[in-house]
Amino acid sequence: MTSRIPCDHLRAKIMSATDAAALIGSGSTVGMSGFTGSGYPKAVPLALAARIEAEHDAGRPFRVRVWTGASTGPELDGALAKADGIEFRLPYNSDPIAREKINRGEMEYFDMHLSQVAPMAWQGFLGPLDVAVVEVSGIRPDGSLIPSSSVGNNKTWLDRAEKVILEVNRWQNPALEGMHDIYYGTRLPPHRVPIPLVRPDDRIGQPYLTCDPDRIVAIVETDAPDRNLPFAPPDAAAFAIAGHLLDFFRHEVNKGRLPASLLPIQSGVGNIANAVLTGLVDSPFEDMTAYTEVIQDGMLDLLDAGKLRMASATAFSLSPDAAARINADMGRYRDRMILRPQEISNHPELIRRLGCLAMNGLIEADIYGNVNSTHVMGSRIQNGIGGSGDFARNAYVSIFMTPSTAKGGRISAIVPQASHVDHIAQDVQVLVTEQGLADLRGLSPKQRAQLIIERCAHPDYRAMLADYYARARAGSYGQQSPSLPAEALSWHQRFIETGSMLP
Amino acid sequence: MTSRIPCDHLRAKIMSATDAAALIGSGSTVGMSGFTGSGYPKAVPLALAARIEAEHDAGRPFRVRVWTGASTGPELDGALAKADGIEFRLPYNSDPIAREKINRGEMEYFDMHLSQVAPMAWQGFLGPLDVAVVEVSGIRPDGSLIPSSSVGNNKTWLDRAEKVILEVNRWQNPALEGMHDIYYGTRLPPHRVPIPLVRPDDRIGQPYLTCDPDRIVAIVETDAPDRNLPFAPPDAAAFAIAGHLLDFFRHEVNKGRLPASLLPIQSGVGNIANAVLTGLVDSPFEDMTAYTEVIQDGMLDLLDAGKLRMASATAFSLSPDAAARINADMGRYRDRMILRPQEISNHPELIRRLGCLAMNGLIEADIYGNVNSTHVMGSRIQNGIGGSGDFARNAYVSIFMTPSTAKGGRISAIVPQASHVDHIAQDVQVLVTEQGLADLRGLSPKQRAQLIIERCAHPDYRAMLADYYARARAGSYGQQSPSLPAEALSWHQRFIETGSMLP
Repeated sequence: MTSRIPCDHLRAKIMSATDAAALIGSGSTVGMSGFTGSGYPKAVPLALAARIEAEHDAGRPFRVRVWTGASTGPELDGALAKADGIEFRLPYNSDPIAREKINRGEMEYFDMHLSQVAPMAWQGFLGPLDVAVVEVSGIRPDGSLIPSSSVGNNKTWLDRAEKVILEVNRWQNPALEGMHDIYYGTRLPPHRVPIPLVRPDDRIGQPYLTCDPDRIVAIVETDAPDRNLPFAPPDAAAFAIAGHLLDFFRHEVNKGRLPASLLPIQSGVGNIANAVLTGLVDSPFEDMTAYTEVIQDGMLDLLDAGKLRMASATAFSLSPDAAARINADMGRYRDRMILRPQEISNHPELIRRLGCLAMNGLIEADIYGNVNSTHVMGSRIQNGIGGSGDFARNAYVSIFMTPSTAKGGRISAIVPQASHVDHIAQDVQVLVTEQGLADLRGLSPKQRAQLIIERCAHPDYRAMLADYYARARAGSYGQQSPSLPAEALSWHQRFIETGSMLP
Repeated sequence: MTSRIPCDHLRAKIMSATDAAALIGSGSTVGMSGFTGSGYPKAVPLALAARIEAEHDAGRPFRVRVWTGASTGPELDGALAKADGIEFRLPYNSDPIAREKINRGEMEYFDMHLSQVAPMAWQGFLGPLDVAVVEVSGIRPDGSLIPSSSVGNNKTWLDRAEKVILEVNRWQNPALEGMHDIYYGTRLPPHRVPIPLVRPDDRIGQPYLTCDPDRIVAIVETDAPDRNLPFAPPDAAAFAIAGHLLDFFRHEVNKGRLPASLLPIQSGVGNIANAVLTGLVDSPFEDMTAYTEVIQDGMLDLLDAGKLRMASATAFSLSPDAAARINADMGRYRDRMILRPQEISNHPELIRRLGCLAMNGLIEADIYGNVNSTHVMGSRIQNGIGGSGDFARNAYVSIFMTPSTAKGGRISAIVPQASHVDHIAQDVQVLVTEQGLADLRGLSPKQRAQLIIERCAHPDYRAMLADYYARARAGSYGQQSPSLPAEALSWHQRFIETGSMLP
C-alpha cells in the first residue's frame, strides 16, 4: 500500500482518518475535492461527520463551511449533512440529504457558476480557506501529486488552504497518471493573460498537482470506490430527443453551418445526455471532440466506436460497468482523455473560442425560452446551475433538452412563465423535447413562443399554453414578451395546491 | 467637401441619398452603423423612410430588416419606424417610436447580447445581409475607410453585405483618424485563436476599416451632427448612489481586494453612471482605465482631471457640450481613447481577462437579486439588454444600480419576484440604490434577501417586502429561494390595474 507514497517526509504524516479529522475545527472553511461523484475524499469527511455527531451529542455546536468542485458522494455531503455539520455549502450539490436540509432552510447554499469558484476563491470575498481535503491517486518521489478521477478546484484548494489533508486512494487506477493537465497560468487581474488553448486536445499545463509540503498536515490512505451509479437505460423520450437533435446536427452540417466533425461537444450529465451521445455512435459525424465537464458512459461508447477523437473534461461520471471498462484499459483511454481544472474546462474564454455545442437539461422552460435549471416550483433547489451558465452563454449553439412532462404528466416542462430563471432567452437557442425541436435562433420572443408551444409542449398542455399566449397577446401591458402577471405563475400554484399543473 | 473622398474610382459612386436608398429593395436585410446615437447614417435611412412612405401610399408593402450596432438616432430608427418600414430589428433600440411599435406588437425585435451580433451574423442563421449602410468620417487614397464616432458592427457589415452604401459625414472631426483599433483576427470556430489584448490600452488591429470596392454601390456625402443629447444633471439619488459606490471601492482597496488604481471600469449609459464617473474625479484612485462600451461626459471629466489614463470603448455618447469640448481638442484626447468593434469591446474573453468593474442600471431587482433590465411589468420592452450580459457575467465585480423607486414612488425597484430576468442572481454581486449598498458576494439567496430588503429597498416598500419574505419563509414549497407563486407578481398586477405598486 505504501508504494503510492514514496517519500519519507510525507510518509511521516500518514495517520488515521479520525486523527486527520481532528485537525479540522468547528467553523472552519474546508475545500474538498470531488466532482460528479468522482475523486472526492472518502474517509476524512466520514470521520469528521462522526466527530460532529459526538460533539452535538455532547451539546457542543460544530459545523463547517464546505467548498467542493461539484457534487460528491454520500460519504461526504450525505454524511456531513446528516450530522447537521454543514453551515454553508458551495458550489453544486446533488446529495439528497443535503438537498433536503437546504430546502428546509437549515443549510445555506451558494449556487455558483462552476468556472467562477476558483477565481472567486482567489478574489478573497469568500473568506480564508482553512483546510483542504483532497483525494489524490498517488504521490511522486518529488512530492508532486498524481490527481484522482476528478480535478475540480483541487489546484486552488491546495494553493489556498492553510492546512492540507491528502487522501491517497489505492482504488484509483495508477494508470491515471499522465492523463491530467493542470494549468498553473491563471492570475488575478490585472495580471491575467490569454489561456493558450486552441483545440480540445491541447495540453497547456503539467500532469501533476503541487503542494507546499509544510502545509500538508495529514495523509490518509484509503481504498474506496468512487460513487459510480448505474445509468437508467434511456426511455422512449430520451431516444426521441436524441433523434431530433441528431436531425438538427445533420441539417446544420448540410447547410454548411457546422463542420462535418461538428464542433466540440459539451454534454450535461444524465440519461438524456447519455442517449444523445449513444445516438452519435450511429451518426455520420467522424473525428469528433468533446470539451465538457464530465466524461460519462456515452463518451466511452463514442471513443470505442472511433467516432470521438478525444474528450476533455474535469471529471469522470461513470456507471460501475463503465468504470470497470475504463479501469481495465486505462492505458489506451488515457491518451484520448484530458482532465483539467474546472476553471479551465468551464472557462468562458475557451468555450467561446472553441465554439462548443452545449447540451444541457432543465427543469422547465417558459414559452419565451427562459430556462429554469435549478428551482422546482421556483423555490425548491434541485441540484444547482453547475456549469450550464458557463457553457450556454458562450456556446456556438446552446441547446436545452427535457421530456415535455414530469411526474407522470402532472408537471409540464413548458410553462407560461418560468418560476425561476437560470438561462435567459438569449442563451437558449435550441429547445428539444420528445415532441420536437424548436430552433429559436434569430427569432423575436413572440416568434419563439409560437414555435415552442407548437414543437415542444406536450399535447396535454399545448392548448392551455396557446390559450394563455393568445390572451396575453390580447391583454398584456406590452407586446414584446406578452404576459399576464396575475396568471403567469398559476400553474405552479396549482401544482403546489393540487399536485398537478392540470386543472 | 470632396477632400474626404480622395479616390476617383470611389468619387464616381457619389450620389444623392434618394438614389442610394433606391438601391435597397423591400424585404432586404440592412446592416446599419450606429451605436448609442453616434456614427449612424443620417441621410440614406431618411430617404429610405420617404420611399417606404410613398410605396405604402401607393398601396405597396415595403419593409426591411434592420441590424445595427446598438441605438441610433431619430433619422434612422425613428424615421423608419414612423414609416412602418421595419419588419424586424436587432440588437438594441432606444428610439421611442420604434419602442412603441414593438410594444404594440407591430415590429419583431430580437434583443441580443451585443458581443454576439457579429459572430452570429457570420454563423449564418440570421440569414444573408443584403445591404450595409455605414457612416465613415472619410476615405483614404488607398480606399480604406476612416471610421466615424462609433465602430459597432461596421467591420462585419462591410465584410458580409452584398452591397455597401457609405455615408461620408463631413461633420465628424477629421482628427478622429487614428483613434480606432479595428481587429481583423476574428474567425469562426474551429479557427478561433486567443485575442491578444491584455491591457485596455493595447492596440491589436489597424486604424482603418477595409471594404472590397466592387461591393460599394453608393457614396453619399453628409454634414450632420450625431444625436448628442444633454444629460439631465444628477439628482440627489444619483449622488447618493455614487457615494455608496465610492465607499465600496475604497473599502475594497483597503481590504486589498482591488488595486489602488481599481480595475478597468465599465459603465452603462445615463445619469447615474455619469454621476458615478463624476464622483471618481474627487476619489483617491489614480491612473484608472476604462474598458467599456461608450465614452460619455463623465469619462471626459475623468480624463481631464488626470485620473483616467485611457478609455477603450466602441462609441461616443456625449452631450452637445461634451461633443464640442472633444471636437475642439481631439488631437489631445485621441491618444487616450480607443474605439473598437463591439465584438471586442464587449468580448467575454477580454472582460474576464481584464477583470472589469461592471456598473449597469436596471428596471427592477427582486429580493434575491435577479435583475430585470429590459421589460417593464415583464412584457413591455424599454431598450434592450445591450452589453450588460457580456459585462455582468464576466466582471470582476458586477454592480447594478438604480433609484429605489420610479414614477414618483409608485413603482418599487425592489420587488418580490422580477417580472422578467436578464441577469440571474449569480451575475449580480453588488446592488446599490440611494438607500444603500448590498454586497451580495458569497451569500446564499436567503442571506441576499435580508440584505437587499434592509439596504436597498425604499422605506415605503421595505415593510411590504419583509412581510412577503417572512410569509415565504413560512409557507414556501422550498426554502432555497422562498417564494409564494400566487403573490410573487402581484405588485406588477396592482401597478397595471391601479397605476401604483402601493396598495
